[in-house]
Amino acid sequence: MGLFSKDIKTLDDLFVHTLQDIYYAENQITQALPDMIAKATDPGLKQAFQNHLAETQQQIKLVEQVFRQHGHEPKEVTCPAINGIIDEAQDIASDIADKQVLDAALIAAAQAVEHYEITRYGTLVAWAKQLGRDDCATILQQILDQEKATDEKLSTLAEGSVNSRAA
Amino acid sequence: MGLFSKDIKTLDDLFVHTLQDIYYAENQITQALPDMIAKATDPGLKQAFQNHLAETQQQIKLVEQVFRQHGHEPKEVTCPAINGIIDEAQDIASDIADKQVLDAALIAAAQAVEHYEITRYGTLVAWAKQLGRDDCATILQQILDQEKATDEKLSTLAEGSVNSRAA
Repeated sequence: MGLFSKDIKTLDDLFVHTLQDIYYAENQITQALPDMIAKATDPGLKQAFQNHLAETQQQIKLVEQVFRQHGHEPKEVTCPAINGIIDEAQDIASDIADKQVLDAALIAAAQAVEHYEITRYGTLVAWAKQLGRDDCATILQQILDQEKATDEKLSTLAEGSVNSRAA
Repeated sequence: MGLFSKDIKTLDDLFVHTLQDIYYAENQITQALPDMIAKATDPGLKQAFQNHLAETQQQIKLVEQVFRQHGHEPKEVTCPAINGIIDEAQDIASDIADKQVLDAALIAAAQAVEHYEITRYGTLVAWAKQLGRDDCATILQQILDQEKATDEKLSTLAEGSVNSRAA
């Protein structure tokens, strides 16, 4: 976020701004995932990241649909939060040589990304409903449900195999 | 995170490093909350932030207890993720003049912080159990439950009154 000029006057402005924020975030995630796929060793984890990349590309199209339904062209605003989360993921990955420990760290990093998306889509759904945009809320809820499912899948992978191999 | 020298060799190292990361994050949150309390207008929101500040100060002591139980002195490592999340919260707050819209934005910012804590404590609980540190896992689970309760309380506040006043 960060327009620095009291540009956000209404809840509608805030909704559009937050949509621009998550649109930037989704695009950054799309750029970060190939490196995580390359670094992952566990075949199930590699596959989960690949699936999530495909899903993220579809989610970007859904966010673009919400922009247009709400009368706006898709636009990004820089999101310092996702930049920080991705920077941290890259830093930690560069600190770990052991492939099994790296897998555990990659899952944790991916779950931090998921939780950022969960909180933002949760907020966007609530604001869309408040603004009487149930059509937008329905699409945003669909993305939110996907993010929650991905987070749960990553927890299952971590607790089912990755953490025990790392220990 | 970010040691840049392959310093993390085992899951135990990764656990301690992530504990240092959340210890830094909790201390940063303690510094950011007074400004959010000052900016909040809704009395319920102001009170929720005040309660969360007191709770965060107690959680810092619990994290210090986990460090010591695990044979380490409490230490911080810079966490780019929480820095980004807090920077974004401060940017957005500076962009909004309307007090009711600002309240809605402050809740969203606080929930982004909560979700960062939820993902990190969730990971720390799983790793503590994997490392056979059920004593540490119990304390970390207690903090995780508090963070989830705070997130739900903020959702209730947003959907119950703050969003409708902002609209």
